[in-house]
Amino acid sequence: MNMRSLSSSSSSSPATVTKLALSIHSSFPTLNLNPIFFYKFKSNKHNKPPFFSIRNCTTSNSISAKPSSQLRKNRSSNSDSDPKLTALRRLFSKPDVSIDAYIIPSQDAHQSEFIAQSYARRKYISAFTGSNGTAVVTNDKAALWTDGRYFLQAEKQLNSNWILMRAGNPGVPTTSEWLNEVLAPGARVGIDPFLFTSDAAEELKHVISKKNHELVYLYNSNLVDEIWKEARPEPPNKPVRVHGLKYAGLDVASKLSSLRSELVQAGSSAIIVTALDEIAWLLNLRGSDIPHSPVVYAYLIVEIDGAKLFIDNSKVTEEVDDHLKKANIEIRPYNSIVSEIENLAARGSSLWLDTSSVNAAIVNAYKAACDRYYQNYESKHKTRSKGFDGSIANSDVPIAVHKSSPVSLAKAIKNETELKGMQECHLRDAAALAQFWDWLEKEITNDRILTEVEVSDKLLEFRSKQAGFLDTSFDTISGSGPNGAIIHYKPEPGSCSTVDANKLFLLDSGAQYVDGTTDITRTVHFGKPTTREKECFTRVLQGHIALDQAVFPEDTPGFVLDAFARSFLWKVGLDYRHGTGHGVGAALNVHEGPQGISYRYGNLTPLVNGMIVSNEPGYYEDHAFGIRIECPDTILLDHQVCIRWKFCLQCGPHLAA
Amino acid sequence: MNMRSLSSSSSSSPATVTKLALSIHSSFPTLNLNPIFFYKFKSNKHNKPPFFSIRNCTTSNSISAKPSSQLRKNRSSNSDSDPKLTALRRLFSKPDVSIDAYIIPSQDAHQSEFIAQSYARRKYISAFTGSNGTAVVTNDKAALWTDGRYFLQAEKQLNSNWILMRAGNPGVPTTSEWLNEVLAPGARVGIDPFLFTSDAAEELKHVISKKNHELVYLYNSNLVDEIWKEARPEPPNKPVRVHGLKYAGLDVASKLSSLRSELVQAGSSAIIVTALDEIAWLLNLRGSDIPHSPVVYAYLIVEIDGAKLFIDNSKVTEEVDDHLKKANIEIRPYNSIVSEIENLAARGSSLWLDTSSVNAAIVNAYKAACDRYYQNYESKHKTRSKGFDGSIANSDVPIAVHKSSPVSLAKAIKNETELKGMQECHLRDAAALAQFWDWLEKEITNDRILTEVEVSDKLLEFRSKQAGFLDTSFDTISGSGPNGAIIHYKPEPGSCSTVDANKLFLLDSGAQYVDGTTDITRTVHFGKPTTREKECFTRVLQGHIALDQAVFPEDTPGFVLDAFARSFLWKVGLDYRHGTGHGVGAALNVHEGPQGISYRYGNLTPLVNGMIVSNEPGYYEDHAFGIRIECPDTILLDHQVCIRWKFCLQCGPHLAA
Repeated sequence: MNMRSLSSSSSSSPATVTKLALSIHSSFPTLNLNPIFFYKFKSNKHNKPPFFSIRNCTTSNSISAKPSSQLRKNRSSNSDSDPKLTALRRLFSKPDVSIDAYIIPSQDAHQSEFIAQSYARRKYISAFTGSNGTAVVTNDKAALWTDGRYFLQAEKQLNSNWILMRAGNPGVPTTSEWLNEVLAPGARVGIDPFLFTSDAAEELKHVISKKNHELVYLYNSNLVDEIWKEARPEPPNKPVRVHGLKYAGLDVASKLSSLRSELVQAGSSAIIVTALDEIAWLLNLRGSDIPHSPVVYAYLIVEIDGAKLFIDNSKVTEEVDDHLKKANIEIRPYNSIVSEIENLAARGSSLWLDTSSVNAAIVNAYKAACDRYYQNYESKHKTRSKGFDGSIANSDVPIAVHKSSPVSLAKAIKNETELKGMQECHLRDAAALAQFWDWLEKEITNDRILTEVEVSDKLLEFRSKQAGFLDTSFDTISGSGPNGAIIHYKPEPGSCSTVDANKLFLLDSGAQYVDGTTDITRTVHFGKPTTREKECFTRVLQGHIALDQAVFPEDTPGFVLDAFARSFLWKVGLDYRHGTGHGVGAALNVHEGPQGISYRYGNLTPLVNGMIVSNEPGYYEDHAFGIRIECPDTILLDHQVCIRWKFCLQCGPHLAA
Repeated sequence: MNMRSLSSSSSSSPATVTKLALSIHSSFPTLNLNPIFFYKFKSNKHNKPPFFSIRNCTTSNSISAKPSSQLRKNRSSNSDSDPKLTALRRLFSKPDVSIDAYIIPSQDAHQSEFIAQSYARRKYISAFTGSNGTAVVTNDKAALWTDGRYFLQAEKQLNSNWILMRAGNPGVPTTSEWLNEVLAPGARVGIDPFLFTSDAAEELKHVISKKNHELVYLYNSNLVDEIWKEARPEPPNKPVRVHGLKYAGLDVASKLSSLRSELVQAGSSAIIVTALDEIAWLLNLRGSDIPHSPVVYAYLIVEIDGAKLFIDNSKVTEEVDDHLKKANIEIRPYNSIVSEIENLAARGSSLWLDTSSVNAAIVNAYKAACDRYYQNYESKHKTRSKGFDGSIANSDVPIAVHKSSPVSLAKAIKNETELKGMQECHLRDAAALAQFWDWLEKEITNDRILTEVEVSDKLLEFRSKQAGFLDTSFDTISGSGPNGAIIHYKPEPGSCSTVDANKLFLLDSGAQYVDGTTDITRTVHFGKPTTREKECFTRVLQGHIALDQAVFPEDTPGFVLDAFARSFLWKVGLDYRHGTGHGVGAALNVHEGPQGISYRYGNLTPLVNGMIVSNEPGYYEDHAFGIRIECPDTILLDHQVCIRWKFCLQCGPHLAA
């Protein structure tokens, strides 16, 4: 039985829904047992931007609050020897390295949410496979920070040489606080500067400077790669493909032309683009370097009169080569990015750098090259020119222009063709989901025992039959009963549960198609849900509908609408501990910025006509059940309409629209 | 016919209301004719904090957008001579003055919303009587800035020597931009430093420094007072009274004790309180120095082991004297505040200063005295101590602690006794309003011709018969038909309209009682309202009810709830150009902070149990009608309930609560 029948007992029509809210309103006194509160999460600046938070929250009150100090006592850090740690530490004392600690983050050089195995250094060094974690190795200690989703998993995967740092728990220091605690003052802390955004590296530098530690940028090699050697997977090298005009809607020349106007307006003569989805969008290219994201590893520099794509040439087909030539884009080796950045400064180019996304290696290389330029300039002109801070543009000296990437916003505002592709792929995706739910309902009704993974695999089978299917857009969250309450649950073949006909089943999944990207969550019950489950489901659905039907003034940031999605839960003292919506790419990343709908008030990006943003309120009762209802919505000038308007499985009101 | 019958045709029950919204939802195409947008107002930092904005917005699209430059051409600035301006300019060249321009703001030394006539210098010098305006006089020009509410009035009241600056209109410079435009570089701009907050003076200084102008603090006298001479009203000198424990709920010793704990926690040893309502609240005193606000002109310094009240001694009755002595508070002359501030620094006291409310004279005096202390200290100790910025507290040197006033928040969170007083005075106030509406309905039904002022006077008559009545809490806004669309309309005897039985009538009024303060708005129609009027009224009422019934998590700032009040208007492309709620004092100012409910996202103050905040959505159709529905609500831990729960004239749902 699908969701429609689940909610039918109290009817999903708004009028009845309001009545329900009022009848519950009269039982307020019970609220004292159930006080209303927000769970606030310490933001992890080095990881995902706020709109990714929905995949980043801790999920449970049951996380251990043991301070790490106590944990450390239970582990004798030198009892076993870890050959990887030993090999890594041996490199610390090399003359061109000379460090006391090394930080290994999860990220690649582009701050991608999903990364190629070749760049999964933190996973290699620590054996911890979770998506979020930072490893720090000193001469006598090794520690790994991860969030509440992964505490149990990390406990199992880390060997006894590792200290598990339960990030966000009381008393657990941050990586930099811990370095200040364990290192003797004046230590040298090494990083691969390609793996940190400039902002993150600057913050790290600032904090550890309190103990006179120095942050050392090791440009020449990644120390983990050095010990990984032959075992390291090759960097991905699958061919790039052109994302045709019939999907992109706008040719590269037009996109570059708009970008160049923005460069001129900002007083810059070049921009470095490092986010892989921004490069893919701008150049109408797609790739297969990373699971779930149809992007390709590359850097892009756009100047007023030309552009250079830094990419492994072996991936560039003849078609792609022609496509790039047409747009006057030259190809350069991926690894020559830093020297080209230095050339730009030497030529006096003022470079637009988004320090919140561009890595420290590039920002620092430009800064150093500018300084050399100024010294040279001064010795010639006997006057000090404006420096790197770029407060005033000066036509003959290079100046960094620190602004958010203009490509991010341009990419988020979909054109007609992209919107059409998104609608069409959602229709096919919805057809696959309809087949899947029909199949699942029959199987469960016939008492078939199916695991969460089997069910997820079957969904993939249905989806992969649809035209233009390429990949899933993220790991399917298929959670029965209590597993549904684990917001980022990933079922594993050996250990996952079966889909219980008498429990709620939450399925959050999506796909990459040639013409668009989907991200859909449905929560269903195949038997008789409890009164509690029905009430919670109805309230989540009320919130979903309230947000879906929201009409709001231009220039409204997403967070203004967030309360609409929560208010029905709030009325009975409930809430959910994640944001309500994130941007969705058009045949690109399933999570994209800059917009979002969240209870965090920092994101002031207005919702703009043509943006796509998910609408996914939920409710999670630990150890019992989870509910989430998600559709991607399109922001239209006068009102907001769910783009699954015809095949939306649950959003009844849209069937008539 | 009162409001209940106005809305009865579509019923005010939430279920029906939702249906109405849906039926209108289906007529979306008409929205293209009526695009949704916010009117954004340039905030006037030198005037009211954001929660006062409801009395500060421009009200009409019909305001002239003529640039002031064009206006200036139409006026020959030297054709008439203005004896006040001549006298003022004569003072510019005195040796101890020596300035090229003088700025005369509306404010008193305490940034009060309402001020005593004695301090109405801007009104005296310019003849402009509006509540908001800044006059700037140079050697050959005089200009007055005011907002859209007052453009017509200022045009009438200013003589031809004055340039009217329509603040907020395109092309109209700010005062500091204008000074940079009209003065030769390196000019001296004089101010009375008591009349500017420290933050406002610093900003002014920063902007005019771009043209190398110097901001000159004229401590010794206010130049307007010098020319005003005998004609200047005496400063108010009515006796102060004790606000008894039966109204205050907490004695002065307890309040001071809590404040002193906060001082210690903040690393300070003294605090200067300058906001008159904060002093009145902290010391359980009330006064009659200012219309509408039961406060007294004074400064207060609280130290760890004592406190000093700076006040005109003639206002201090024996009872008040005893009351203060009991709390170990000494009395000092009002004008000795600066020398005492200097003494504090000289004694090494670290002073808590809220630079957003404390005036520049006091902040600067402390800073200068600290500098003298440091010089003396250095010459003794041969080391440089920490400076005025107060980054690290040091027990033996004076340091400024820059933080928001802790009294403001303590005052805003009402105790049980204050809440009881507010409820009781609202009951009596509602009784007066019921008598008034009954009277008015009969009069109008009998075709009596009544002006807006006559009606307002009658309301005062009813109110003044209620026990404990003291004053109105602001000038009554009594607006028939199009006058209702003027958000801050003040009817004047000679020029006001009559109350038209066939138009909407908006009445926003409130009173000061011995036990509390009220602020209520009702909009009624005595005949047959149009379909448009009914629809708009219903939507405003829906918003009022939605906000009133909102339940939300702890730590929610007011702006999160703002959209609840607007969403029903938004659905048909309408909005209102003011905030939704402001704090209301308990037998204190009708507008108080720090909380507020507004579409401005800057106020992060969480709504806390015990706060009172108005709930006043509206809708204004220029030249046609205005609608506003306002009750003050109390924030309770689990939900929000209108405190007029039994006598609320229109909030039906509360009658049953």
